[in-house]
Amino acid sequence: MAYINLQNDLPGVVGLFRYRPETAGPLTALAETLLRDPNTLSRGERELIAAYVSNLNQCDFCASSHAAFAAAQLPEGMDTVSSVCSDLQRAPVSAKMRALLRLAGKVSQGGKAVTVADVEAARDAGASDVEIHDSVLIAAVFCMFNRYVDGLATTAPDDPAVYAISAEVIVTHGYPATAG
Amino acid sequence: MAYINLQNDLPGVVGLFRYRPETAGPLTALAETLLRDPNTLSRGERELIAAYVSNLNQCDFCASSHAAFAAAQLPEGMDTVSSVCSDLQRAPVSAKMRALLRLAGKVSQGGKAVTVADVEAARDAGASDVEIHDSVLIAAVFCMFNRYVDGLATTAPDDPAVYAISAEVIVTHGYPATAG
Repeated sequence: MAYINLQNDLPGVVGLFRYRPETAGPLTALAETLLRDPNTLSRGERELIAAYVSNLNQCDFCASSHAAFAAAQLPEGMDTVSSVCSDLQRAPVSAKMRALLRLAGKVSQGGKAVTVADVEAARDAGASDVEIHDSVLIAAVFCMFNRYVDGLATTAPDDPAVYAISAEVIVTHGYPATAG
Repeated sequence: MAYINLQNDLPGVVGLFRYRPETAGPLTALAETLLRDPNTLSRGERELIAAYVSNLNQCDFCASSHAAFAAAQLPEGMDTVSSVCSDLQRAPVSAKMRALLRLAGKVSQGGKAVTVADVEAARDAGASDVEIHDSVLIAAVFCMFNRYVDGLATTAPDDPAVYAISAEVIVTHGYPATAG
């Protein structure tokens, strides 16, 4: 049970969105812009960064949600997500994605943990400035969502089917649909 | 100099907003809603939480900015901000604000660092569920902004006058004015 009375039984951030629609608006607009608007990184690649950071932060609700959203939009589905989360070094992703995921992992430790070498490694692997920018911001945004969801002790369903259904909603309708 | 070519000389998050207006929109809307829209916590109190968390995260640009914004909107100005950042235990703030600031400090460590005792302490000191929610979210949001600003190595001016001028803009026009 959450630390505050959310006046609804919805899990994770969805219950928080319902509780406080004032902040749900900009938060879902931010997720939509970063994770779904046109970008040289695919929707699946951006969700993979979200899933990876949420897994590092041990946020069960966000990690399960964005793993499902990434899996639904990546060619190799959950296999890629599982490989990245269990062993990034050996995971079957491009050199560019590996470097951007490493950069995202550094951001999760703290802004000052990111070094010029981390950024150069991403650039050497073919990442553009906008891709580096967006990867840092996606990682930072999930350091926010993870703290929001766990700092208020919201619930995280155990049943994978719940996250698969959410993935259908997100893939079909996008994030603003979760704020309503 | 920032890790990416921002194509402008603006410091901190302002340079990032100018570089990527697509994400600046929802980010400034989020700050406006959380820090300036009608709330039982005053604008000064909410900026104090932002300044306190940014100081814990050692983000010079955000800590200096929100210290100036808090000081401009608190009765005792910068004295309150400095006391809170140097010794929260003895700082001359209400019991409710002290408990909410402690809660925010826990959020900065990680979502799972927040305990039921932290939340109960805030409630016992008179905080409402919405105030607890908003304090957790403000803290989480600054864990994002701090990582965004430092993860891309943006610049932070040394001159306090720069932050005082920004404070005038924010107090008069609000956050969306910084995105344009």
